[in-house]
Amino acid sequence: MSASAFSFQLRHRSSESQARCSSFSTPHGTVHLPAFMPVGTLGTVKGLLVDQLQRSGAEMVLANAYHLALRPGDDEVCRLGGLHEFMGWPGPILTDSGGYQIFSLANRTRISEEGATFQSHIDGRTVELTPERAVEIQEALGSDVAMVLDHVVGLPSSKQEVAEAMQRSLRWAARCRDAATREDQALFGIVQGGLDAALREESAKALTGMDFSGYAIGGLSVGETQHEMVDALDATVPHLPADRPRYLMGVGRPEDLLAAIWRGVDLFDCVLPTRSGRHGVAFTDRGVLRLKNERHRGSTDPLEADCPCPACERSCGYLRHLLLAGEMLGPILLSLHNVTYYQRLLRRTREAILADSLADFCRARYAGWGVEAALGSGREPSAPGR
Amino acid sequence: MSASAFSFQLRHRSSESQARCSSFSTPHGTVHLPAFMPVGTLGTVKGLLVDQLQRSGAEMVLANAYHLALRPGDDEVCRLGGLHEFMGWPGPILTDSGGYQIFSLANRTRISEEGATFQSHIDGRTVELTPERAVEIQEALGSDVAMVLDHVVGLPSSKQEVAEAMQRSLRWAARCRDAATREDQALFGIVQGGLDAALREESAKALTGMDFSGYAIGGLSVGETQHEMVDALDATVPHLPADRPRYLMGVGRPEDLLAAIWRGVDLFDCVLPTRSGRHGVAFTDRGVLRLKNERHRGSTDPLEADCPCPACERSCGYLRHLLLAGEMLGPILLSLHNVTYYQRLLRRTREAILADSLADFCRARYAGWGVEAALGSGREPSAPGR
Repeated sequence: MSASAFSFQLRHRSSESQARCSSFSTPHGTVHLPAFMPVGTLGTVKGLLVDQLQRSGAEMVLANAYHLALRPGDDEVCRLGGLHEFMGWPGPILTDSGGYQIFSLANRTRISEEGATFQSHIDGRTVELTPERAVEIQEALGSDVAMVLDHVVGLPSSKQEVAEAMQRSLRWAARCRDAATREDQALFGIVQGGLDAALREESAKALTGMDFSGYAIGGLSVGETQHEMVDALDATVPHLPADRPRYLMGVGRPEDLLAAIWRGVDLFDCVLPTRSGRHGVAFTDRGVLRLKNERHRGSTDPLEADCPCPACERSCGYLRHLLLAGEMLGPILLSLHNVTYYQRLLRRTREAILADSLADFCRARYAGWGVEAALGSGREPSAPGR
Repeated sequence: MSASAFSFQLRHRSSESQARCSSFSTPHGTVHLPAFMPVGTLGTVKGLLVDQLQRSGAEMVLANAYHLALRPGDDEVCRLGGLHEFMGWPGPILTDSGGYQIFSLANRTRISEEGATFQSHIDGRTVELTPERAVEIQEALGSDVAMVLDHVVGLPSSKQEVAEAMQRSLRWAARCRDAATREDQALFGIVQGGLDAALREESAKALTGMDFSGYAIGGLSVGETQHEMVDALDATVPHLPADRPRYLMGVGRPEDLLAAIWRGVDLFDCVLPTRSGRHGVAFTDRGVLRLKNERHRGSTDPLEADCPCPACERSCGYLRHLLLAGEMLGPILLSLHNVTYYQRLLRRTREAILADSLADFCRARYAGWGVEAALGSGREPSAPGR
């Protein structure tokens, strides 16, 4: 990575926890961490215009190299000016490599040491995804941050399967690092090892030795409980360098974000805010609202009184009407609200870290969401080390 | 109608045609005519936020009393603050009464002198729509302009059927006028008579005698050719008062708007810009573009170089990608472009009327659209009287 193109600045370390506030500078701007990236798999965060995303407070978005390589093709995105120009997002973009699709499209995938062979979910043709090809795609897309190709396995899997996938991911990570050529693109390594603490530690240490620009924690959000996720974080984060961004892939629920931030994680992505929005589910400080429910019929209340998003200028009764009538505006407004909610949550979390009041902030949020039990005793934010 | 709440000001009469520029003031603002109303049947213009609609240049939108009475119910819209508050549109709103649904949902409708009986297309329950009920719904919704309940028949129909529906529409119009109570809501009459010039004239004259705040030309856009539509306008408009707005319901294509404006029509609505947008079809000065076509693959061109809408900040290659991938943003961006296109077309048409250059303007548009033949000899805008 070019010293001039990227930098990671630690601004404040929580006095109560492993949480930290930092900033990560890229060729397309600076991201204030901890941050949440809305997911724009195919070069669009579903249902939202770029200016709406910007007004939500989002500073960085995620796209998916595997999906874009299939449709419309990384060569076509490149011809259309690269991913930033293609989708009109002027800020930083992180691309996932396709490792998660090895898991999520497992019944269409074969793995060898060379790489993954997919049967396209679009037209059935065979798609080879090697570490070198994953880098090539991401360099053609021109994202600010590329991810190594990793081998994600579902949970539970046997220890041998998890260990083999972790070791293969290390070899693939080294091949990605060797293949990368762009000075204006950072490459992040991805820790694997499932729920096995020793494997997580081994993966984290080996990747740290390869000197990546940032480190992701992969292989989670694949069916584990929050307790298991927290244990995996506790087994991983202490072995990652403090002077690089830490990114928990595919996570998640608001309560998962706070639990991970408490443990020193800086960056997140998840489809939850947009996917939930499309299904009529809204995130609020009072917990999740299912707008199709009869109790919102005729309600003049907004989703949240202090939310600045366009959905909250309308009544829950109107939002429910849109959803029941199958009007596009319902999913649009709820997606917009949820993306705004996540960005506001992260901004307030950063403020709480800076004010050394993260524990109080987390307790207030958990109480509002009604999810105290989900963390379990001894795993509250005030006792992160356990 | 209250003299203070509504006014119609004729600003300029075309020296070349029957076209005119005027302004129509309502309790929620002034509309510059000729104008096109985007259609928001259920209290939302499909896929668009209110601020996007406003930025498109739209000054007035249409909603549908029949559909809103079924879902969520006119009583619920009223409880939620009325239609303006409900959908967040601060400007003028016109509501159609449900007469068009007598035609479009004909296989679910029975007609008597008392009114129409619908079998709800949502849940099958029986819905009575009398002239008095149509006024009651629209008064509960609180639109600025209400439409009388009319009996729309499809074309072709026998002369007797058309004549009976026209006569019934006159009796229903009188009942609507007698039922209306709101001083802050204008009521427009609707001319019927199908393609029969004598029936059109009779209807127009009879309605004019009832002194409505504006006059609509109904029963068109139901399968007739453009020639037939133009003939129906020529048989109707000369018999409408010059000091009231004239509204051609449900029309239509850009070339239809110009042909009707030439003949003195002031106001339009149609689902075409939004419905076409959802199907990947864009309106431009060079004619209609079907974005899914192979020829737009990899195209770096915008839909229109001088269009200020968000879709035109992106490439046709990107828009095609969104549509082929089934991404919501494709229909959203194309709907936004088309609504913007219609508003820009109307604005430029108003400017051409004021500059007495409407004939040149129409010829240039027709040439760009490649639709000269659709008007036919002797029916060009330069020869409106035939």
